[in-house]
Amino acid sequence: MLQAVLQTIDSRRPNCVAALKEFLRIPSISAKSGNEMDMHRCAQWLSDQLIFAGLDVRIMPTAGGKGRPVVLAKNKHVAGRPTVLIYGHYDVQPPEPLELWTSPPFEPTVRNGAIYARGSADDKGQVMSHVEAIMAWQAHSGLPINLTLLVEGEEEIGSKNLEKFIAEHRDSLRADIAVVSDTNQYARGIPAITYGLRGLVYMDVTLTGPSHDLHSGLYGGAVPNPANVLCQLLATLHDRDGRVNIRGFYDKVAPIGADERAIWAKLPQDEKQFAADLKLSSLAGEVGYSALERMWARPTCDINGLTAGYQGPGAKTVIPSKASAKVSMRLVPDQDPIAIRDAFAEALRQRCPKNVSIEVTCDSYTPAVLVPMHSRAVELAAEAVEVGFGIRPTLIRGGGSIPVVQVIKNVLGIDTLLLGFGLPDDAPHSPNEKFDLDALHCGARTAAALYERLGKLQA
Amino acid sequence: MLQAVLQTIDSRRPNCVAALKEFLRIPSISAKSGNEMDMHRCAQWLSDQLIFAGLDVRIMPTAGGKGRPVVLAKNKHVAGRPTVLIYGHYDVQPPEPLELWTSPPFEPTVRNGAIYARGSADDKGQVMSHVEAIMAWQAHSGLPINLTLLVEGEEEIGSKNLEKFIAEHRDSLRADIAVVSDTNQYARGIPAITYGLRGLVYMDVTLTGPSHDLHSGLYGGAVPNPANVLCQLLATLHDRDGRVNIRGFYDKVAPIGADERAIWAKLPQDEKQFAADLKLSSLAGEVGYSALERMWARPTCDINGLTAGYQGPGAKTVIPSKASAKVSMRLVPDQDPIAIRDAFAEALRQRCPKNVSIEVTCDSYTPAVLVPMHSRAVELAAEAVEVGFGIRPTLIRGGGSIPVVQVIKNVLGIDTLLLGFGLPDDAPHSPNEKFDLDALHCGARTAAALYERLGKLQA
Repeated sequence: MLQAVLQTIDSRRPNCVAALKEFLRIPSISAKSGNEMDMHRCAQWLSDQLIFAGLDVRIMPTAGGKGRPVVLAKNKHVAGRPTVLIYGHYDVQPPEPLELWTSPPFEPTVRNGAIYARGSADDKGQVMSHVEAIMAWQAHSGLPINLTLLVEGEEEIGSKNLEKFIAEHRDSLRADIAVVSDTNQYARGIPAITYGLRGLVYMDVTLTGPSHDLHSGLYGGAVPNPANVLCQLLATLHDRDGRVNIRGFYDKVAPIGADERAIWAKLPQDEKQFAADLKLSSLAGEVGYSALERMWARPTCDINGLTAGYQGPGAKTVIPSKASAKVSMRLVPDQDPIAIRDAFAEALRQRCPKNVSIEVTCDSYTPAVLVPMHSRAVELAAEAVEVGFGIRPTLIRGGGSIPVVQVIKNVLGIDTLLLGFGLPDDAPHSPNEKFDLDALHCGARTAAALYERLGKLQA
Repeated sequence: MLQAVLQTIDSRRPNCVAALKEFLRIPSISAKSGNEMDMHRCAQWLSDQLIFAGLDVRIMPTAGGKGRPVVLAKNKHVAGRPTVLIYGHYDVQPPEPLELWTSPPFEPTVRNGAIYARGSADDKGQVMSHVEAIMAWQAHSGLPINLTLLVEGEEEIGSKNLEKFIAEHRDSLRADIAVVSDTNQYARGIPAITYGLRGLVYMDVTLTGPSHDLHSGLYGGAVPNPANVLCQLLATLHDRDGRVNIRGFYDKVAPIGADERAIWAKLPQDEKQFAADLKLSSLAGEVGYSALERMWARPTCDINGLTAGYQGPGAKTVIPSKASAKVSMRLVPDQDPIAIRDAFAEALRQRCPKNVSIEVTCDSYTPAVLVPMHSRAVELAAEAVEVGFGIRPTLIRGGGSIPVVQVIKNVLGIDTLLLGFGLPDDAPHSPNEKFDLDALHCGARTAAALYERLGKLQA
């Protein structure tokens, strides 16, 4: 039966691209307020596809209101079959800066075998691979598993209502395993299953010096300048070896396993080319680790934003009253986000001079996740990739964070398969985001094969 | 004759306030483009006052175009009389943030003996003191000096065309002494003549790391983050004692003279109150000097602006491609602005890691100025202040910079008397800028007396 399903997917390849274009044309930018119409249009469009495939679909509000609903779809569940929860998101990042796009972000355009549009790789294209696989199965004997598809509209704004949603619909969402397709292949021709992700602690730091902006001539030299102090504080966050200089930061960092090192060592790695692609003369980071190790298995501390004083053209001679920074740390197993959050805040508070007041708040945090590398599910997924792409996948970690993985673990008590089809140069969140048409197609084949393989899991 | 002139000024006090209100109602914001109508209206209004006083007035374009013209006015010059060049400006700073104003910035409002409006102290009120004195003299026997009044419209945007203007009209502007009223009294009841100003070097620093913004999860730990590097670089600019850590920075700094120390020691100074007024628990700065000394006679280095990455609400996990800062240094005699500019740029370039590119540019610079403390002109000005305010003035320095003083010295070869009537709490450049009505009135009396006294100078 899988062969017939795969044949359908192969023959429908142009239809799938056409459908993805429709999906991508809807500017479902969750960060924009007053965009509810587009969000609803997008949820409705996706819902229509799934209804056409014969699924039972509901568009459901979250605790954040009706503006960015969840699309929840199920086939007719049959007792005794394993249940698979597939997660994706239909919302996209804002497209700005518009002037850097070769073709407009919401006019999907095919060039060089890829489709260019905001959301193409992250995550509409990957969701589309699943939708196509579902359609193909339903066109034949029907899906071989109990499938629950949850596609949310708030991922790009932090999935703040998702945990509550999953908790409230815990019974309806109960499954044996979850699948998230929002990760990458290692490279073109090297599909991958991701078994680890870094965590995140995102902090806001605001310093206040004098009660209002001052003339730097009249007051300069006599008052604490919070912008000067901010730089001094943030400069203390790393030592000369690129290590994060916060007490206890590395205490719980798990070393990289020998088996992982062995797998990673086989992957093609060209740090010079990697640097050159970013127009860098060389890379940077913690001494003693390869770039791959630093991105996948070592924690970081990066300034994501700085704001102080005058930022326009020309000169303004101001001593700002306030200076602020956004600073995030990527965490690895087994760092505890709450302990790291507190240690960061404590370090900055202690180092801040007493005549400047400091406010440190946490925007969000999520721990790193590691799923078992050698489980039955990973083996089945590897077989599915081999069917879909014709190549055995490698095992990789990722540097980013997908908070839903931890939510699924906490609330539903199940592991997640991270099986994504993006390529490292897809430029999600950036201008000229793209998704490879081969990835779309082989992704759909892989999803179809995965459903068949997961049907063999114990329910 | 001076007594009659002073009587006129005293009796016209309400008229002078009414005229200043008209002047302040015109939003002559030079930094705003498309504001030429208001700039012209303001220049024309001022011109009308001076024509009414019987002066010969021209509204003249600068090299920057006709948008922000110079108002140039003269009485009938008589051979053998000393010529006095009076400088002021009619343009004002932008009023934002508007929500912090108690009364609207261009609806001048009198409260507690002061007039509140953008530009009231800086510099329309001070210009008005001179206009009033001119009118009063002209209403009697005519001015006792050859007077040239130059009021520009580009001071708040750096007077970029003024040097060229003065050079081109060198012959027409030739004078024996210049007077600038754009400084402060030391405190209420302590009028002052300013004999020193700090210089300024204003720099822009831009760092570029990766060629485009990167996802901090996917790339974090492997690439140089220009925001991290910017903080590290700027943190090196001061040592633990608050001294500026740039090679040669202090080499030419003139020590504070014994006579100056003696004068300053007599001035009331309350550093605790000064800090409390700014809601600071304590002051800051170079060790070994009083706050007054640090503001008047010691050089500084202050960050005036920081820009990097994401600055909006919430979180964006970005490693920015670029990070930039505006940094200015206040200079004291005998620091050379060009040497300081170059040393600053060289220090940052040397300290910048090789995989981050750095661009350091200079926006503007001007040296510190010291005018003779014990000259005949200062003595005459002191007499004029005593006539105007009823109190002998003190001698002070100022922490800010007035580039025109150096331009006048360079191009016309004359010294400038810095005789201003502002108060330290006037809040120029800030919301709720004000000018004291007593300062306006006593300033006009002082100007009238000054013209008489300067008439005694050798032409």
